[in-house]
Amino acid sequence: MVGMTGLVSLEGKISVEAALRARLRKFEVVLVSTAVHEEKVADVVRLAEECRVPLLKVPPAALEKMTHGKTHGGVVATCTDRSLTPLDDLLSSRKKPHLLLYLEGIEDVRTLGQILRSADAFGVTGVLVRKHKWDFDSGDLSRASSGSYEHLPFHRFEGTDVIGRVRKEGISVVGCIAGVRRTIYEGKWERSTMIAIGGEKRGLSGATREQCDSFLKIPTREGAPSLTSGHAAAIVLAEARHVRG
Amino acid sequence: MVGMTGLVSLEGKISVEAALRARLRKFEVVLVSTAVHEEKVADVVRLAEECRVPLLKVPPAALEKMTHGKTHGGVVATCTDRSLTPLDDLLSSRKKPHLLLYLEGIEDVRTLGQILRSADAFGVTGVLVRKHKWDFDSGDLSRASSGSYEHLPFHRFEGTDVIGRVRKEGISVVGCIAGVRRTIYEGKWERSTMIAIGGEKRGLSGATREQCDSFLKIPTREGAPSLTSGHAAAIVLAEARHVRG
Repeated sequence: MVGMTGLVSLEGKISVEAALRARLRKFEVVLVSTAVHEEKVADVVRLAEECRVPLLKVPPAALEKMTHGKTHGGVVATCTDRSLTPLDDLLSSRKKPHLLLYLEGIEDVRTLGQILRSADAFGVTGVLVRKHKWDFDSGDLSRASSGSYEHLPFHRFEGTDVIGRVRKEGISVVGCIAGVRRTIYEGKWERSTMIAIGGEKRGLSGATREQCDSFLKIPTREGAPSLTSGHAAAIVLAEARHVRG
Repeated sequence: MVGMTGLVSLEGKISVEAALRARLRKFEVVLVSTAVHEEKVADVVRLAEECRVPLLKVPPAALEKMTHGKTHGGVVATCTDRSLTPLDDLLSSRKKPHLLLYLEGIEDVRTLGQILRSADAFGVTGVLVRKHKWDFDSGDLSRASSGSYEHLPFHRFEGTDVIGRVRKEGISVVGCIAGVRRTIYEGKWERSTMIAIGGEKRGLSGATREQCDSFLKIPTREGAPSLTSGHAAAIVLAEARHVRG
């Protein structure tokens, strides 16, 4: 394909397969190392064919040169970032009740990737990420998410207007913060909900807190260190899913 | 102090303060940047004095040279690794019922650090880590754990004999794995328990599984990616603490 801009290198079978299946990236080429057993890459080869993406078999040394990770396992693609999900599409999802995840202040690509992986595992219907300067490599994000980044409804925004729009849909916005009285075990998780989680350094911003419908904490021992954003997200999503059964 | 071997650089106020309080490391010196406001490091200065550890104020450039992280915030110590906890001491802890955490296959220092932070937050009474080649920098581990590594009862072992010893104490050993029938929401968490969690790649080893009393899974949606070891640990520890109340 000619004229694709902002190409990234997507490394590893899991990410490349997930991306081919999701069809949200435009692919220039898929490269497969000649050192890898054919049956190990049979799915990638078949998917590339179905999607009409050129596939080349190249010597391992050539692949090494263009990758920056060490665990690509002989499968690399050159492609655009995935297309993001417009807010309207995300909110009109037929999966109801909603379980949305709102993230701000996440500065680390691995942390975000791992959260997406858990969001996928617990049936989140959409992820909304606020990040002023989006400096994540979408290949790194895909790998850290074990491919979940490729297919989850994923919306990026600035400011906090998005919360008002979500609330208008009748979705309850729950801030997950320390130091409040009610715990996540008292949450009304059967309702359509958006869980808001902040970064390690500052937690949820004042502007976001002002727009939350309620707040819940994850109970920890007194004097304990705060939880990481990733672990907090995993715990609250697991509980929401558990209550929904 | 003369003759200390295996010195590491411990970076950041949180880790250095936690280490001085825990008294499980031997310190050569604590360095504080002259660029940092005095009141910001008042606690470190006081603790170093109480522990009779030499403290030097040095120009920021000198500190930069000896650190490898970027977020030391002007406080760095040179010290040994912390002393580990003998298994007998760990098992004789007066905190009952036990909530022990058994980890194997964790290859990433940040993942282990974040697990220790959650273990601390949820009142784990001891952490047992199996790692054939211990190649973690104890300064990195401390930082990733937000200082929790400094004071948690922490035991390192090889092989799996340790499980037999734990079971002899009447502690129930619960393997957290996918694909079993019972979920963590059916666990008998009031009892003294050791939760066993494996690494991303291979999960719990066969040798460990053979010695578990029971297995529980974290329920996720069908076809979902597996959870990271860190998120799995956080979810199961949160649930155990929740049940204990």
